[in-house]
Amino acid sequence: MSRWEPNARERLLRAAVESFAERGYDAVTVAEITERAGLTKRTFFRHFADKREVLFAGQEILSRMFAEGIAAAPAEATPIDAVAAALTATEAAFGPERREQARTIRQVVADHSDLRERSLLKHAKLTATMAEALRERGIPDPAASLAAEIGGLAFTTGFARWVEPSNERSFGEVAREALSELVEATAELG
Amino acid sequence: MSRWEPNARERLLRAAVESFAERGYDAVTVAEITERAGLTKRTFFRHFADKREVLFAGQEILSRMFAEGIAAAPAEATPIDAVAAALTATEAAFGPERREQARTIRQVVADHSDLRERSLLKHAKLTATMAEALRERGIPDPAASLAAEIGGLAFTTGFARWVEPSNERSFGEVAREALSELVEATAELG
Repeated sequence: MSRWEPNARERLLRAAVESFAERGYDAVTVAEITERAGLTKRTFFRHFADKREVLFAGQEILSRMFAEGIAAAPAEATPIDAVAAALTATEAAFGPERREQARTIRQVVADHSDLRERSLLKHAKLTATMAEALRERGIPDPAASLAAEIGGLAFTTGFARWVEPSNERSFGEVAREALSELVEATAELG
Repeated sequence: MSRWEPNARERLLRAAVESFAERGYDAVTVAEITERAGLTKRTFFRHFADKREVLFAGQEILSRMFAEGIAAAPAEATPIDAVAAALTATEAAFGPERREQARTIRQVVADHSDLRERSLLKHAKLTATMAEALRERGIPDPAASLAAEIGGLAFTTGFARWVEPSNERSFGEVAREALSELVEATAELG
């Protein structure tokens, strides 16, 4: 068997999430995921440390997209403009074909306290990555940290709205809407 | 030996932190901590799940103080006023006699990636507790979440300034100063 399997990561991710949706996260084994994907366990472990990491695989990529989106914003962009650019930059990771998968992952995480903790941690790291990218643009603290927290809230709120079954808008659209609401809310904080 | 030891928790905390400062966190055992405190291992484990939890013991109490401080703020308080009241309410946990202890704990956490992760997680929970307390005051989202994140940043920044060897101001004073700077920074976010 060739060491390189075309699209192995994506096939494993899809097989895993389909299995979680059908049989529940706890019952699913790595063997079951690899069988469904038509790949070996060895291939699985080249892509994911364990079953749990399948759920969080996207977040590493997201962190990079956020940092790159912030770095690529025009020189004259305000901190919030740069955050908006980052939310737009991540849109590619949230195509309509991803919604059902994202909804399943979100539900699995919500149902397990250890996974919720891991998710909080990943969120904190994502926010820290954004703050660092903003500081690299020359935005000093506390503005950089503050804009990053607002970006993190916009991301979380946008994601929750995007996976709603009734939602038909793109991730970028709902996330930027959430960002606008947050910016408006800053005026009412007193 | 009596099951109840006067001030056992505080004695164990002090003995643990002194041992960490002298010999390094990794080298210190629970046996060493209890010997130094003149208490039994059994007493230790009634107060702390393990050596690591000594470092985070204060955060549970802090979360409660924050929630109570927010709940007790006057009815007419703005979200930021309520957060300022919460920072003031935690001041009792940060007497001048605590500074050296806090500095040691901060350094131990900074030196260990697993402890940094745990600290991020506790911080996320503290912020979630504040957001919930703000919602219970009738402050809607996103203002409640936003004010809680700002409160979390003010807490972190205030704590970092308070433990600085050159600092002579109270925790409440430096934390409220950090909060004011954050509120000012919201105006520059664009």
